[in-house]
Amino acid sequence: MGRITTSRQVLRLGVPTAGERPDTLVVEEPLEIRVGGRPMSVTMRTPGNDFDLAAGFLVSEGVVSEARHLRAIRYCAGARGAGENTYNVLDVGLAADVAAPAPSLERAFYTTSSCGLCGKASLEAVRTTARWSVADDPLVIDPEVISAMPDRLREAQEVFERTGGLHGAALFDGHGRLLCLREDVGRHNAVDKVVGWALREGALPLRGSVLLVSGRASFELTQKAWMAGIPALAAVSAPSSLAVDLALEAGMTLIGFLRGRTMNIYAGAQRVREHPSPVEAG
Amino acid sequence: MGRITTSRQVLRLGVPTAGERPDTLVVEEPLEIRVGGRPMSVTMRTPGNDFDLAAGFLVSEGVVSEARHLRAIRYCAGARGAGENTYNVLDVGLAADVAAPAPSLERAFYTTSSCGLCGKASLEAVRTTARWSVADDPLVIDPEVISAMPDRLREAQEVFERTGGLHGAALFDGHGRLLCLREDVGRHNAVDKVVGWALREGALPLRGSVLLVSGRASFELTQKAWMAGIPALAAVSAPSSLAVDLALEAGMTLIGFLRGRTMNIYAGAQRVREHPSPVEAG
Repeated sequence: MGRITTSRQVLRLGVPTAGERPDTLVVEEPLEIRVGGRPMSVTMRTPGNDFDLAAGFLVSEGVVSEARHLRAIRYCAGARGAGENTYNVLDVGLAADVAAPAPSLERAFYTTSSCGLCGKASLEAVRTTARWSVADDPLVIDPEVISAMPDRLREAQEVFERTGGLHGAALFDGHGRLLCLREDVGRHNAVDKVVGWALREGALPLRGSVLLVSGRASFELTQKAWMAGIPALAAVSAPSSLAVDLALEAGMTLIGFLRGRTMNIYAGAQRVREHPSPVEAG
Repeated sequence: MGRITTSRQVLRLGVPTAGERPDTLVVEEPLEIRVGGRPMSVTMRTPGNDFDLAAGFLVSEGVVSEARHLRAIRYCAGARGAGENTYNVLDVGLAADVAAPAPSLERAFYTTSSCGLCGKASLEAVRTTARWSVADDPLVIDPEVISAMPDRLREAQEVFERTGGLHGAALFDGHGRLLCLREDVGRHNAVDKVVGWALREGALPLRGSVLLVSGRASFELTQKAWMAGIPALAAVSAPSSLAVDLALEAGMTLIGFLRGRTMNIYAGAQRVREHPSPVEAG
């Protein structure tokens, strides 16, 4: 684990054993993602699975969609103090046929340069173009399979138990099998790490899968799921209005407040039903 | 409330009264912040207190620190469809003696242009320079006053009850009096809205105050508190390692896991103690 958690002295008040003790905290450090040597983004993240994070970020931004689009990812050798590598700067080399991305804010500036389109333009500025359709994904999931997912996430989420400070994102297949779990101090990073893992495994688009997130479902997370071709997003907490609107537009299934045996289905409810049993009992 | 919450149809499973019903959701919409007509940032936010949000964002970025630094804030008239104003683009006019900011990513690019400083440089890229010292703030708070704050926040947080989807940020004085509460789908926005309110009230730096956030304490939120001159930050959930490091560096008090009568004090514990009573009873 190493850099994922760290220890700091804490004074604990209000319990029988009040006093000073070491406390385990989740590590938060900046990661600069460069593409072809050019800085593209700085994100505050929990170290670990950084290559997945960078790859997933580039999928979310619409830059890459296949494993072969990534030529190489390497940590940029730093020279802080005695020449140590901080492991906080990554450089991604793209395949020759992949267009280098415009930096995010340049994209935002470009699309919002005309005031005449105001709100539309600023929405476009945060929106990327989905490469795959999810509306036609034939996934059907049993509600009981969905209900079991949060416990699977929590069981598998090692660091949260110790620190209470990490968001989790977990990818399941339609039978509820856990395919990939990633954690991060930023929930968008946890999702990017899952998507980047899938890209590097050659598994995009993620047809027939369900993405579970430990917190709320925002517009941004819904968009990341769509960019990865995921047909169903489930969240333990509430979705936002724009997340629902985007899921309806994409033909994606969106589930919120997934707790115990209850859930709210905000879009794509046709995918949530009991599987027809191949053999009838009795 | 209008644009703060909205209604969407939802299929609720797993409860005795399963079925379709309208559900109240928190609204998430993009806000583009321009300075002197130039796009500076696009954030996904909950509409409401947008002027405070823009003002607080500019405090956090180190652009303004006094009410007079803002000459004017106005919604940019849009022309979507029939010329309606989307209220999703704001333009901030700065006073003549205030330097216009570099766009965030330009700042990031600038500070990270040399690979020789890698991690340090990317940390600098997300770091702003505090205008005020908080280390010398003589604030002393009674632990009981701190323990009562989360209930005050929840009582005052109207929208959360209905949607479960909003982060809250609340500013208290040293006696536990609630000075300002703001909510948003993004926790950094909730804090910016509080800070912007204070700027526009002429209340910066916020000496002697405590900022309570409903979630976790990240590096970013700790930095925003420091930029506003707030000497104490309390969070209901966990802090990150970098939040603790920054609080120690700033001489700020940082409290996490503030639940019931228990709390963890990660920095600045000297400010948390019972007030000496001016008159002894008995």
